[in-house]
Amino acid sequence: MVSDCTSKDRLRLWIRLLRSSRAIENELRERLRREFDVTLPRFDVLAALHRQPDGMLMSELSRYLMVSNGNVTGIIDRLEADGQVVRARRAGDRRASIVRLTDKGRTEFEAMAGEHETWVAELLGTLVPDDVEKLSTVLHDFNLNWGTKA
Amino acid sequence: MVSDCTSKDRLRLWIRLLRSSRAIENELRERLRREFDVTLPRFDVLAALHRQPDGMLMSELSRYLMVSNGNVTGIIDRLEADGQVVRARRAGDRRASIVRLTDKGRTEFEAMAGEHETWVAELLGTLVPDDVEKLSTVLHDFNLNWGTKA
Repeated sequence: MVSDCTSKDRLRLWIRLLRSSRAIENELRERLRREFDVTLPRFDVLAALHRQPDGMLMSELSRYLMVSNGNVTGIIDRLEADGQVVRARRAGDRRASIVRLTDKGRTEFEAMAGEHETWVAELLGTLVPDDVEKLSTVLHDFNLNWGTKA
Repeated sequence: MVSDCTSKDRLRLWIRLLRSSRAIENELRERLRREFDVTLPRFDVLAALHRQPDGMLMSELSRYLMVSNGNVTGIIDRLEADGQVVRARRAGDRRASIVRLTDKGRTEFEAMAGEHETWVAELLGTLVPDDVEKLSTVLHDFNLNWGTKA
């Protein structure tokens, strides 16, 4: 049976999605601060770079994290000063610089990542496995469709 | 059939949830700014107060929106200066003030709310009705469980 769906239904879903996302994000922000003295945006940048051992352009980082270029630049400046990332010129392009993790950055991120994964599993622990799989599939498709529109 | 589910599966779901939530939020923020010259936090405060005609305590607003008390106070200061909300002392309590929409605030919010609902319906338009209903139910339960733990 196919159900019908009004704009009010979609608005309600959006509010619920936003509330769950904010609640989880706030809790993770607080734990990262308390346990590792690291901000959430900084953790997000380290996590993104960890997935790309060859490094990322600032514009790619900004787009991937969906935050402004200016915000990413400030975070990278601080990570560079702390020796966790390096900037390198891209071959044949004097303007764009590639950012990548240093060994120090990788080691420090990996120490946090395990704890972070445990926290997420705990915070999402009230969802039964079938719902985890269903939501994951639906949101994956949603994000793919989002990327292709506009 | 009940599927199994690892912490990696829950982490993947969290990343997808965060990405979809951020994408929608960024787009709504941009449209609110462009069409109504209003910030998203300000819209969120107006929306919360619109649901509670008798007003809300600052602490209730802060908890409902899941942002810090300091942030809410700054937004309320500006809304009050613009005549969209009023603060009133709660009977028998000199410390806590109740905030509620003025007629002007209500009228101006309602003019934006219709557009906002249309945008949300459009942005979530790639989700089929059955998935809207499923996600909405699962996230509602998740949010309820969140509220009762801790």
